[in-house]
Amino acid sequence: MDYIQSAKNPKVKQWKKLLTKKGREQTGLYLLEGFHLVEEALQFKNEIEEILYSENIMIPSHWNMDHVKITTISEEVSKAISETESSQGIFAICKKHQYEEKMMEKGKSFLLIDAVQDPGNVGTMIRTADAAGIDLVILGDGTVDLYNSKVLRSAQGSHFHLSIISMSLQKAISLLQEKGVPVFGTSLQSAESYKKVTIDDSFAMIVGNEGNGVSEELLQTTNQNVFIPLYGRSESLNVAVAAGILLFHFQDSLKSN
Amino acid sequence: MDYIQSAKNPKVKQWKKLLTKKGREQTGLYLLEGFHLVEEALQFKNEIEEILYSENIMIPSHWNMDHVKITTISEEVSKAISETESSQGIFAICKKHQYEEKMMEKGKSFLLIDAVQDPGNVGTMIRTADAAGIDLVILGDGTVDLYNSKVLRSAQGSHFHLSIISMSLQKAISLLQEKGVPVFGTSLQSAESYKKVTIDDSFAMIVGNEGNGVSEELLQTTNQNVFIPLYGRSESLNVAVAAGILLFHFQDSLKSN
Repeated sequence: MDYIQSAKNPKVKQWKKLLTKKGREQTGLYLLEGFHLVEEALQFKNEIEEILYSENIMIPSHWNMDHVKITTISEEVSKAISETESSQGIFAICKKHQYEEKMMEKGKSFLLIDAVQDPGNVGTMIRTADAAGIDLVILGDGTVDLYNSKVLRSAQGSHFHLSIISMSLQKAISLLQEKGVPVFGTSLQSAESYKKVTIDDSFAMIVGNEGNGVSEELLQTTNQNVFIPLYGRSESLNVAVAAGILLFHFQDSLKSN
Repeated sequence: MDYIQSAKNPKVKQWKKLLTKKGREQTGLYLLEGFHLVEEALQFKNEIEEILYSENIMIPSHWNMDHVKITTISEEVSKAISETESSQGIFAICKKHQYEEKMMEKGKSFLLIDAVQDPGNVGTMIRTADAAGIDLVILGDGTVDLYNSKVLRSAQGSHFHLSIISMSLQKAISLLQEKGVPVFGTSLQSAESYKKVTIDDSFAMIVGNEGNGVSEELLQTTNQNVFIPLYGRSESLNVAVAAGILLFHFQDSLKSN
């Protein structure tokens, strides 16, 4: 087992690069932090490149780390690569998902996220999409990076459970429509109540930016646009809450066929 | 119009006290920050004690601030009382909601929040309860303070639109049941799918702590406990997303009677 003591070690410099989107793109790797997320990662060992943990933490005895490369690190190194205020001292370096043609070929339910910038919202929607049994999440341009540490924390490990790719949503909509998947936008104007929509054998739903909603350009290419009728005085819902209501309704409708 | 230049002015010390729960309890006042929230507050002028703004900001010309006490402040004072990294330089000092017997007498739909600690979750649930037309939100023991600045920011002004009180949930449940309101807990064990529940003319729903859910003690006093069946591999939903799905379903059922 390797041991890295100094934060000046060149390996530490490599790991710190994974905290930036550019560094993740160059290497195809990302850094996960904390017991809960590393435990989830261990269920998907072929996605793990390496586990790092601080010399002064206890590893739960039920963890199976066979065939995983382990490096122990000093507290100094742990602090250097942590993005939390009080680090738990445990990390996994994992491989990013790659787009594969079959992801879009096989799925029946899709969530498309248009320019959502808050990492907590994106992470919560990934967790919700997982719970709703969505097959593929597509992050459009302007949406915060999946491997941002706050996105991963809010997603609570759900990014291991379902396929997530980044792609132009214009292109994604065309591809989906070509294979016969109806695409629904969410909008307050010229839209139908979501309760009136019935799903046959597949659907894709687009949710949009916190302030501006789904872009007009995309709304014009959808099969139908839907909205959630509100009872009270608030003008809108949080995007992750809206996604939850819509995804569960659409899946209920899909599964009941 | 008063002008306060120095952050050492005794008034500034009073305002800073409103950033703590204790200070808010002693005075019955709280501090709101930012253009969006102050604009919302102006719709409810009798809740405003005073508006403070920095001498170098522009007030939107459509704002009607008649009959509102205004104090201008220096940038130094603005920084001293701000809880954001880059302050917008505008604040309102408002009066906290007070519990009134009639809030519980008149309502038909209630959201009870048991020990939810993340301010973003509590704020988002208040916004969601507003959108769903809920009559009263009751914050139980262990739930983050309504007037915490992060709660107010996530609630986006919805705390002006509906009644919100803090109260022991044991007591709230008894009072609700006495007046014939069925109380629903949320739980994964010995619970019924929420889709099988129909609502007659009123309901109260309890959601619980992020890690532990609704406390066992409360679950034993409800009329019925419900859960959201999940399709995927995630074990649970974010509490605000779950609240959204349940509140809209229950309101749909209530309104269709």
